[in-house]
Amino acid sequence: MSKPPTRIDAVMEAVRTRIASRAYPPGTRLPSVRAQAKAMGLSVSTVVEAYERLVAEGVLRARPGSGFYAAGAAAPLALAELVPRLDREIDPLWISRQSLEAGAAALMPGCGWLPADWMYEAGMRRALRAAARAPAGVLADYATPLGLPALRQLLARRMAATDVEAAPEQILLTESGTHAIDLICRFLLQPGDTVLVDDPCYFNFHALLRAHRTKAVGVPFTPSGPDLDAFAAALREHAPRLYITNSGLHNPTGAALSPPVAHRLLKLAEAADLAIVEDDIFTDFEIDPAPRLAAFDGLSRVIQIGSFSKTLSAALRCGYIAARADWIEALADLKIATTFSGSQLSAGILFDALTGSGYRKHMESVRLRLARAMAQTITRLRALGIEPWVVPRAGLFVWCRLPAGIDAADVARACLRDGVVLAPGNAFSQSQRAGGFLRFNVAQCSDERVFEVLARALSAG
Amino acid sequence: MSKPPTRIDAVMEAVRTRIASRAYPPGTRLPSVRAQAKAMGLSVSTVVEAYERLVAEGVLRARPGSGFYAAGAAAPLALAELVPRLDREIDPLWISRQSLEAGAAALMPGCGWLPADWMYEAGMRRALRAAARAPAGVLADYATPLGLPALRQLLARRMAATDVEAAPEQILLTESGTHAIDLICRFLLQPGDTVLVDDPCYFNFHALLRAHRTKAVGVPFTPSGPDLDAFAAALREHAPRLYITNSGLHNPTGAALSPPVAHRLLKLAEAADLAIVEDDIFTDFEIDPAPRLAAFDGLSRVIQIGSFSKTLSAALRCGYIAARADWIEALADLKIATTFSGSQLSAGILFDALTGSGYRKHMESVRLRLARAMAQTITRLRALGIEPWVVPRAGLFVWCRLPAGIDAADVARACLRDGVVLAPGNAFSQSQRAGGFLRFNVAQCSDERVFEVLARALSAG
Repeated sequence: MSKPPTRIDAVMEAVRTRIASRAYPPGTRLPSVRAQAKAMGLSVSTVVEAYERLVAEGVLRARPGSGFYAAGAAAPLALAELVPRLDREIDPLWISRQSLEAGAAALMPGCGWLPADWMYEAGMRRALRAAARAPAGVLADYATPLGLPALRQLLARRMAATDVEAAPEQILLTESGTHAIDLICRFLLQPGDTVLVDDPCYFNFHALLRAHRTKAVGVPFTPSGPDLDAFAAALREHAPRLYITNSGLHNPTGAALSPPVAHRLLKLAEAADLAIVEDDIFTDFEIDPAPRLAAFDGLSRVIQIGSFSKTLSAALRCGYIAARADWIEALADLKIATTFSGSQLSAGILFDALTGSGYRKHMESVRLRLARAMAQTITRLRALGIEPWVVPRAGLFVWCRLPAGIDAADVARACLRDGVVLAPGNAFSQSQRAGGFLRFNVAQCSDERVFEVLARALSAG
Repeated sequence: MSKPPTRIDAVMEAVRTRIASRAYPPGTRLPSVRAQAKAMGLSVSTVVEAYERLVAEGVLRARPGSGFYAAGAAAPLALAELVPRLDREIDPLWISRQSLEAGAAALMPGCGWLPADWMYEAGMRRALRAAARAPAGVLADYATPLGLPALRQLLARRMAATDVEAAPEQILLTESGTHAIDLICRFLLQPGDTVLVDDPCYFNFHALLRAHRTKAVGVPFTPSGPDLDAFAAALREHAPRLYITNSGLHNPTGAALSPPVAHRLLKLAEAADLAIVEDDIFTDFEIDPAPRLAAFDGLSRVIQIGSFSKTLSAALRCGYIAARADWIEALADLKIATTFSGSQLSAGILFDALTGSGYRKHMESVRLRLARAMAQTITRLRALGIEPWVVPRAGLFVWCRLPAGIDAADVARACLRDGVVLAPGNAFSQSQRAGGFLRFNVAQCSDERVFEVLARALSAG
């Protein structure tokens, strides 16, 4: 379809990249046409043409008699331009947008959530009816800085079930789980800092860390947690400020942290004075809870975050942060400065839906349904030569290895043409060493066509 | 109550400030006790004591035989420590928290919103009942990247009323008006950049810009917009990247932009390639709309933002950004990276409440009620010798000068003791030259006690 890139394109791309990375800040005079041509080993006319086209695009400005300058205010943080271009199929932002934009017709075994009809619809309807009868203030007023006290108290009780002790004053409500991590990044990081992530990890962590202009370093993940030797080496080599992980049901692998790994990991973190974000959004899917870093550590250097998007509703946003009281104070200031207030009514509706016995029963049935879907999906995938890396104890995800020699991005591309959105391994991998993996959401694999389309793509590859 | 600061306190404060500003990044070895003592003209024992106390606080770590080091991961962005300490009464974050935390018993003529019983309660109840009957997907699913299409179409039509032409694809829904500006700051700014604000301006802009580690420069505001000579001088002197303002009803002054000032301002912005955020959250309070920079400019370098928190509900958060299509694309990526998705259900409920004839009629009555409250409040304030700087054409706010020699922070402090939360001028002022002003919210001034408490504070001052 598209023509191969020309030399002119190469010059344009080089200039764009330098503007995006601020190697040429706005208003900078660019190297002269002659100098640029010499530096790139190209003809002057090629560079002139490239510069002229960039002027037409508004990327450069020409000042007659003076040269070419990086254009002014428009030197924005375009995430898509801050990193080497990846195949769209493994670009985290592209996958997120694709999943969020896909119509109801698309099949989405690659997406990260339950189908709408698995969610707690009856509870949401009941809670919305109750909200319609709430006092006027509840319908109109801003939330308090930390957010709805009743929901924070409920969260404190829920956390106690995994031995995480948090007072309600140590809990801050946020707009979402991602927003929770975003606030923490703002609080603990500055541009140029290094953050450790699992390799593989939830793909949006890459985009989020990029938005903070920080550097992500991957630590290989094993079936019982991060590889501790690699973790220790990364601490020595990169002096990271933060590590982000899931302890319970790891995304994308479905693995869970073991108690000895939790202990040794925290010792390493303590020696390096490393802060840890434990993303706990899959907690309600667990059958036997894995150990929590936040429980071992007592919310000293570990910060736990979560949300209700995976089990209750993703249509009303609400997440939370549990951390040291002094950190919560500072995070509340940052929340006010950057979003002013959370949604008191959303928090109230979610609180209502979570209380009452209905939610507990609903989640029991979801866990059973997921266990069945997990078994069926694994059986069907094995029939295609696709093997689970580890058989998860619970949850939505199974991380699978494709038959040898097959590239997940190729498979994803082929399936997308047939209306099936997959999640290829390298979207989750900092090292880009997961090209032979796919993450499957077993709740989104009930339609026979998923496997038909997959089989076709595999045999074509 | 508190003792005067000692020399030990002075050393501790100096060290804390340098750690907060990252002049001493985490892990840095501090100047030796002897060097520090010499540099500050203090005794060695004073510095030793200060360092030891900072070790006890966890701010420093002592390494025997090696010296004192800035503690590790805990070098967070504590907004409260990034700036010179202001009186709490004029600290933007403190005022926000005070207003958000105040109980129903407090009187809040200093707050920025309508009382709950002025809001569109009937519409919200109706919309919540409708939401309770919505299809399952509406109750459970994530929003699309730009947000609910119906609400974006409605916004496009609303903007047309002030001659702002925006296609629905040029509109991105956000979590709030503040979140809208926050995303734009992330997109256009980097740490160290300069941003122009009005002096005075909405106080949370100061906190927001601080959170982005950017520098705010104030431009004196006149009854018809920013002082253009000062604006031009600030462009020359500071090469700012962005200007944030309100065109319609300016917060805190209640003034409105005049068409000639709009024209000349945009010419200056164009010559300097400056981007502008036009915060339009008070639009529905206007009776005769003021000119909009976004209308003059055609959403080229002007970005308009808004929300529904001031008229419909602050309990369900939703804001928006209208901008150039390519900027909206990049902003949508940033939104996904940092909050993943907006709240589809909130957007749907607000859309429902906004449509139907009820909202228009409700706002007509609110505007009338505000006009009456404005006249009454001004009369009562004048009786106390408090004069409006300009008589606003509409809206919530009147910006008033206190009798000569009276300090607004003193008055605010005295009134707070009597349960009345005021908004003293310097909270809004970058130059701190508004110490003789208070901002009043006329909708929060119906209780006689506001003026009684105020009279007492004035006579005591």
